[in-house]
Amino acid sequence: MPQKVILDVDTGTDDAVALMLAALHPEIELIAATTVGGNVPVENCTENTLRVFDHIGVSIPVYEGMGVPLARSQFPRGSVHIHGEYLDIPPSRSKAESMHAVDYLIRTFMKSDGDIILVPTGSMTNVAMAIRQEPRIVPKIREIIFMGGGHEIGNVTPSAEANIFRDPEAARVMVQCGVPMRMLPLDATHKALISTEDCQAFRAIGTPAAVATAIFVERRIKAYDATQPMKRLGTTPLHDPLCIACIIEPDIIETDFIYVDVECYGELTRGRTVCDTHHRSGKEPNVHVAFNADEARFRKMLMDTFS
Amino acid sequence: MPQKVILDVDTGTDDAVALMLAALHPEIELIAATTVGGNVPVENCTENTLRVFDHIGVSIPVYEGMGVPLARSQFPRGSVHIHGEYLDIPPSRSKAESMHAVDYLIRTFMKSDGDIILVPTGSMTNVAMAIRQEPRIVPKIREIIFMGGGHEIGNVTPSAEANIFRDPEAARVMVQCGVPMRMLPLDATHKALISTEDCQAFRAIGTPAAVATAIFVERRIKAYDATQPMKRLGTTPLHDPLCIACIIEPDIIETDFIYVDVECYGELTRGRTVCDTHHRSGKEPNVHVAFNADEARFRKMLMDTFS
Amino acid sequence: MPQKVILDVDTGTDDAVALMLAALHPEIELIAATTVGGNVPVENCTENTLRVFDHIGVSIPVYEGMGVPLARSQFPRGSVHIHGEYLDIPPSRSKAESMHAVDYLIRTFMKSDGDIILVPTGSMTNVAMAIRQEPRIVPKIREIIFMGGGHEIGNVTPSAEANIFRDPEAARVMVQCGVPMRMLPLDATHKALISTEDCQAFRAIGTPAAVATAIFVERRIKAYDATQPMKRLGTTPLHDPLCIACIIEPDIIETDFIYVDVECYGELTRGRTVCDTHHRSGKEPNVHVAFNADEARFRKMLMDTFS
Amino acid sequence: MPQKVILDVDTGTDDAVALMLAALHPEIELIAATTVGGNVPVENCTENTLRVFDHIGVSIPVYEGMGVPLARSQFPRGSVHIHGEYLDIPPSRSKAESMHAVDYLIRTFMKSDGDIILVPTGSMTNVAMAIRQEPRIVPKIREIIFMGGGHEIGNVTPSAEANIFRDPEAARVMVQCGVPMRMLPLDATHKALISTEDCQAFRAIGTPAAVATAIFVERRIKAYDATQPMKRLGTTPLHDPLCIACIIEPDIIETDFIYVDVECYGELTRGRTVCDTHHRSGKEPNVHVAFNADEARFRKMLMDTFS
Repeated sequence: MPQKVILDVDTGTDDAVALMLAALHPEIELIAATTVGGNVPVENCTENTLRVFDHIGVSIPVYEGMGVPLARSQFPRGSVHIHGEYLDIPPSRSKAESMHAVDYLIRTFMKSDGDIILVPTGSMTNVAMAIRQEPRIVPKIREIIFMGGGHEIGNVTPSAEANIFRDPEAARVMVQCGVPMRMLPLDATHKALISTEDCQAFRAIGTPAAVATAIFVERRIKAYDATQPMKRLGTTPLHDPLCIACIIEPDIIETDFIYVDVECYGELTRGRTVCDTHHRSGKEPNVHVAFNADEARFRKMLMDTFS
Repeated sequence: MPQKVILDVDTGTDDAVALMLAALHPEIELIAATTVGGNVPVENCTENTLRVFDHIGVSIPVYEGMGVPLARSQFPRGSVHIHGEYLDIPPSRSKAESMHAVDYLIRTFMKSDGDIILVPTGSMTNVAMAIRQEPRIVPKIREIIFMGGGHEIGNVTPSAEANIFRDPEAARVMVQCGVPMRMLPLDATHKALISTEDCQAFRAIGTPAAVATAIFVERRIKAYDATQPMKRLGTTPLHDPLCIACIIEPDIIETDFIYVDVECYGELTRGRTVCDTHHRSGKEPNVHVAFNADEARFRKMLMDTFS
Repeated sequence: MPQKVILDVDTGTDDAVALMLAALHPEIELIAATTVGGNVPVENCTENTLRVFDHIGVSIPVYEGMGVPLARSQFPRGSVHIHGEYLDIPPSRSKAESMHAVDYLIRTFMKSDGDIILVPTGSMTNVAMAIRQEPRIVPKIREIIFMGGGHEIGNVTPSAEANIFRDPEAARVMVQCGVPMRMLPLDATHKALISTEDCQAFRAIGTPAAVATAIFVERRIKAYDATQPMKRLGTTPLHDPLCIACIIEPDIIETDFIYVDVECYGELTRGRTVCDTHHRSGKEPNVHVAFNADEARFRKMLMDTFS
Repeated sequence: MPQKVILDVDTGTDDAVALMLAALHPEIELIAATTVGGNVPVENCTENTLRVFDHIGVSIPVYEGMGVPLARSQFPRGSVHIHGEYLDIPPSRSKAESMHAVDYLIRTFMKSDGDIILVPTGSMTNVAMAIRQEPRIVPKIREIIFMGGGHEIGNVTPSAEANIFRDPEAARVMVQCGVPMRMLPLDATHKALISTEDCQAFRAIGTPAAVATAIFVERRIKAYDATQPMKRLGTTPLHDPLCIACIIEPDIIETDFIYVDVECYGELTRGRTVCDTHHRSGKEPNVHVAFNADEARFRKMLMDTFS
């Protein structure tokens, strides 16, 4: 039986690859995508998500969610410079559902048998809104696997990663909610890089998913080389699909089970995921945090799935 | 035509009087009450609200709302010591609606002609959740009139009043939302006190509403005399009904139109309503803040309505 | 026996009048002035202080102190627009002492019999540095009487007054130090205004001190009328000399003995003096806070002293 | 010519070894030690420092400094559980100087030719007080080499190391002051561990310094094994002497030149050294931060020097 998954995305080039991996891998049943603002405005995230599904010929419902964060007036620091305003694939033909993503999450989990994994790869605003409005969904969520945070590495600031920085209050609500949780921070995703050569290989595969991956990653590499170069130029992290990959092959990442909380108040550290790696807080562990990832297996999984 | 009102309450002895004033005054049409945790847990607020309506023999729908604040794990500093766990009137016979208060607010305002005033007299969690999830309701809300905050006076701390202190992030979302707004802080409500002698007068009236008012206020006076005495012992502010009173007779309060924001980050001042009374911020006014109230007219309105 | 006083000033037009009142009133023995940056850079404060003493023909030692605040890189929000870069009286002929103000305070109080009142009318940086480096001076200080803070009124922000806002950490060190303390916030000083007509009267007196007062106050009135007008145009508070006036005639102000602390962390409230006027903190009183002042007696004292 | 050094210490078992290394190594001229509270109260730090010098038979002046932090009322989280109240060597016979450490630092650097390295291995309170009171010393300090902070590792909290946590405001003043600076955080010092076997070797050497090192380190190992065990039990970091070691052999550590600042405001991250390892802040580098250390060479230097 494939694992049921809801992807909560701010698509985004790497969200797009996560959507394709989840939609196309036989061991995953992607039952819906919900969208949240962040990388680009929420309307663009929704359109991008529809584009991806149309492009690869799947019909999966898309629910538009929060366009503003939980406690602040707007999502700061979008990433249009990395993702572009819209994905470089044809406009969507299908339409989003009319129900709000928060309502969809509440209804779906309230009637769930506890067999759905929730995978947020954008800011956690939809997740926090749903948990806050209907706390009874918490025991119904099998697991939350999210991309976000950084321990040794930040991106929007030296201390914080974009998904958390854009809505720290929501991230804090989520990590404290009690659902079993895996976290894939920059420390893990920066260890599974995709290169220009990989893009040529994707392009050679020739399927819609593989070609789109090449298009999205090539744009990312250009942006990363220009603004936050990896040690080897011509490579980029592809954060979000790693969350799907570790459902299929859990040991594609290595995790520590530790206490994690989110700083919402700092002057320099707002949005930092505080990872108690050395057990100094005296608090019980709540999150399995990945500090490593297997680049070769990750690349192979993408190639195999998109072939 | 009576003014349509939705009361968002954490009933609470003074919320109870506000509910009765709104339900019974001919110039107000109370179309629903929504509940939020704060003074007591949200379940108790709901039960108390139902008790009030049953007690005075009206049938008005009650929607239960948020039991936790927007961005923190629980409402701090309940006020059971002031309000009691339940109101001292018989248990309810009627039932709350099944729809969540946040959904009710969104639906009601989305289809509204802009003729409903929203009156939050507890923490603003329901209001903030609704505004955040569905920003399109903002232009549909005729006005928000809320009890909360303090400029020269605090209660839970020297800097903050309970409704704001319990969910500062929600209060900030609300005051910044753009709806026309009147604010009734402690500075106003402490100028319209009800006394032990007034309670005897209410009791003498003999109607269910008047007797209940006497019961509620007598409990308040005991609690205030013991924990935060007014300059004249044997008196208490009765904050929340003043929000209804000023719909009926706007000049029962005196207001300044100034810029107001909410401090969410201070060590000593978390939950403070920052009122720019002397125009030092350079920001545009957004709230009509009451710094005074007409005690005699307020008392008379309650007595007349409950007779 | 006149009361010994050290004035710690960021001269400044109102500091200048405080210096003249302290230097010329027979019941005060001004043993020294120490300077601190704030209204203008510390070098200008020192030069201004020397100018004042030269102008009125007194010889009182001046010690230059802190040019930067305790914990931040510079004093924010100077007030050159109110005070001018230098006072409008002739340049000084005398020189400041070579010893640093902090060292002077430590040495003087270490050998004091406990008979000196310390009067800070600028930021409390010198005071905090001295108390921190040599805590044994605390029991040697007879009293601290400071101008600063605001409860119902702010000036640099809606929440904060300039002396405290420029160095909140120093202010907190001082108010928590245990010395008996009187605080004269904006709430008091805005109740003792000096007018354009008063300036004419000062000018008519014709002494150097009276004429200088007229010059300084006229500049203040222009600046206040333009940037933060009082209810009656053509008037200005003259904050700092009120600290000297209340040594001579204690009942020129009315005080409450309450708990006061300083907010150093708020987003909107950094630098706020939190005055527990309604006894909500459960903390012991530490400061006698003036909320009122007798304008007529204050004006008369200035006129009599400068005649 | 040996390098002139002033050690600013909160002795402390590892400060003690740093003092001995600096006093006894021929390439270092330790011209004075200044003390600051932290691990233990400042009086104990002074006594401990005198004990060390008496024990190894050197005569170096000791100046007692700050017993309270810059902006808070006391140093939080002492480490008596690690260091003991006093070092386990005989009480001192010599006396501390009467001048305050802050005055000593100001005077010494004001008349210096720029050839002295300042080595803080405790909280930076003395350093910050001196820099604040007399900013003209900044260009006279050849270099500051400090033990403190952590990037991937914290100790008193998951986010912060003790020296910084106890006085974040002082640490911020120091790192922003403009003196060339090397920082040795936990990331480096946890890579140069000393073991129980090493202690036996020190004891076998038989000199006062070597035996004292064995005594101090054995106590540390017990405390670390019990409260914050290293991956290999029976080992401990010996943070402070690494600051002296890297003067003698600069390549005993590996450094990155990056932007560093100190978080003073966070709820979870107060006292965190924010290291911009991935150049995300756009700020100019100000500190050479060590992320690695050569354990074998460090151990050998200690043994050779103490033989």
